[in-house]
Amino acid sequence: MRERSRKRPDLDQLKSGIDQCDRTLVARAITLIESKRPEDQRLAGNLLDMVLPKTGRSIRIGITGVPGVGKSTFIEALGTFLTDIGKKVAVLSIDPSSTRTGGSILGDKTRMAQLSRNPNAYIRPSPSGKSLGGVAQKTRESILICEAAGFDVILVETVGVGQSETAVKDMVDFFLLLMLAGGGDELQGIKRGIMEMADGLVINKADGKNLAAAKQARKAYLNALHLFPPHPAGWQVPVQLCSALQNEGIAACWETIAAYQEKAIEAGYFAHQRKEQNLKWMHALIRERLEESFFLQNNIRGKIEELSESVAAGELSVRHAVAQLFSEK
Amino acid sequence: MRERSRKRPDLDQLKSGIDQCDRTLVARAITLIESKRPEDQRLAGNLLDMVLPKTGRSIRIGITGVPGVGKSTFIEALGTFLTDIGKKVAVLSIDPSSTRTGGSILGDKTRMAQLSRNPNAYIRPSPSGKSLGGVAQKTRESILICEAAGFDVILVETVGVGQSETAVKDMVDFFLLLMLAGGGDELQGIKRGIMEMADGLVINKADGKNLAAAKQARKAYLNALHLFPPHPAGWQVPVQLCSALQNEGIAACWETIAAYQEKAIEAGYFAHQRKEQNLKWMHALIRERLEESFFLQNNIRGKIEELSESVAAGELSVRHAVAQLFSEK
Repeated sequence: MRERSRKRPDLDQLKSGIDQCDRTLVARAITLIESKRPEDQRLAGNLLDMVLPKTGRSIRIGITGVPGVGKSTFIEALGTFLTDIGKKVAVLSIDPSSTRTGGSILGDKTRMAQLSRNPNAYIRPSPSGKSLGGVAQKTRESILICEAAGFDVILVETVGVGQSETAVKDMVDFFLLLMLAGGGDELQGIKRGIMEMADGLVINKADGKNLAAAKQARKAYLNALHLFPPHPAGWQVPVQLCSALQNEGIAACWETIAAYQEKAIEAGYFAHQRKEQNLKWMHALIRERLEESFFLQNNIRGKIEELSESVAAGELSVRHAVAQLFSEK
Repeated sequence: MRERSRKRPDLDQLKSGIDQCDRTLVARAITLIESKRPEDQRLAGNLLDMVLPKTGRSIRIGITGVPGVGKSTFIEALGTFLTDIGKKVAVLSIDPSSTRTGGSILGDKTRMAQLSRNPNAYIRPSPSGKSLGGVAQKTRESILICEAAGFDVILVETVGVGQSETAVKDMVDFFLLLMLAGGGDELQGIKRGIMEMADGLVINKADGKNLAAAKQARKAYLNALHLFPPHPAGWQVPVQLCSALQNEGIAACWETIAAYQEKAIEAGYFAHQRKEQNLKWMHALIRERLEESFFLQNNIRGKIEELSESVAAGELSVRHAVAQLFSEK
């Protein structure tokens, strides 16, 4: 035990490791952030304050799509392309399945074999945790650590399930939706409302005998996007084709993101969105803290379950159910 | 003062007034619900419990669209059509502008002159209040009062601004989005994501020289809807044309809603959605209660404002900003 704790890097070591983009110490820093021990949490807070001045200088890109759309292959191709043009790339994940079942849809870094061996890339699997809010909080802070370490591009991937896309949308500058050209079937898994949140759509697997269908799907989506409310940055949301497997269309995807960044910065939207995201984060954290202490009360969850059933059965008004929780009735 | 309080109906009078669908006493009951006095709130809670067994038997329809789309004219036409076929119709509003500026976009019942004189209709303007959550809570409870009074159809209207559509979506069985055929301009006011929340789209003002454009817009929206994820009830979201002013297409809108209700009940989605809405309402109320007591603390809002600025300036991490609010650092 003593041996282990002696080996543990202190805050100054972590800070200078981050400064030098030492991937082992970056990983240690993120592990500290993800730790549940109160003492670690205090240290993590101090570390974040120390690196804060060096954060914010990356472009944060969210990538979502249903299982099977080819997210890993796409991220491997995009990440490799970016390191080839001299960028440093960090890949973080939010895996909502792990918050519910403990299992994982996204799996771990072995999915991206090539990128994980790339010295200018850093891949971090999804943090575990019971609440999406807690997991999102850790990922937000991991973004800051990676930025302080000098990563230029942060890719945050998630599965198009539950509320995780909204969580990712709220922490990135550009939100990319990966699609397939298979008609309506693959849409089964996408949550309604996600399409309108995207800053860019990319139809993957646009190769071989899929190409014609992908081109047609592109046209259809472009027409549909015209009917959406305008993008708040005055941006025309594009629909692009790519084949991550054949490494086609990847450069064009990056050009789009770069063009978006330029336009959004010019329009003042880039900074505005980040500011709003921070405010939203702060309020979410306040709410979470308040709920946390409430739900820590003895047997409150069982009580809520019980009251919910009475409400569902029409025996109790919602107002009185809540009043009973707060022991007022 | 004594005179006034003697005239005030007691709970039994209110209850029997609601049973008899006495519109004056229905209005008094809703006023009690909207009252901010703690004693009134206690009475309102008891009244709601008394009427609870008679609630839930209406179809709740949300109607939204940007200012100028013709919501009042549409509701007047639909409401009159419904009373003509023997239905009793209540119209409630949520006006988000009144929660911010005190002013009102939707205005009051004088907008619907014909319907407001109709003995089988009851029109109630938007409750006032500082938080959308509080306003929504009152509207939900007003729905229950109207149902207990025997209204078969509850129309809840809102302007397509801010978060109010989501609030309305969460309290209705069918969510209708009114649109115009004017191209992209009228979409400026619609929030992104609303279109995918709709159970039905209606293009209003489809008359005279607008008709051709409306027909074309209908086709385009139908194509776009095919690209959306499927509706959770397995429902094909329709796009209909109407001219509320010329009273055209109103019956067809109602037929659509009735068809939806039948299908959703059959699929088990109708009951499922109401149950989920109640749970969400309960949780929202818990959150609101927790936040309320937190924000009642001395000068907490000023402190949040101050900390937000430090966060936005990159001087303080969100984590420590929140810790400071909870006086931990």
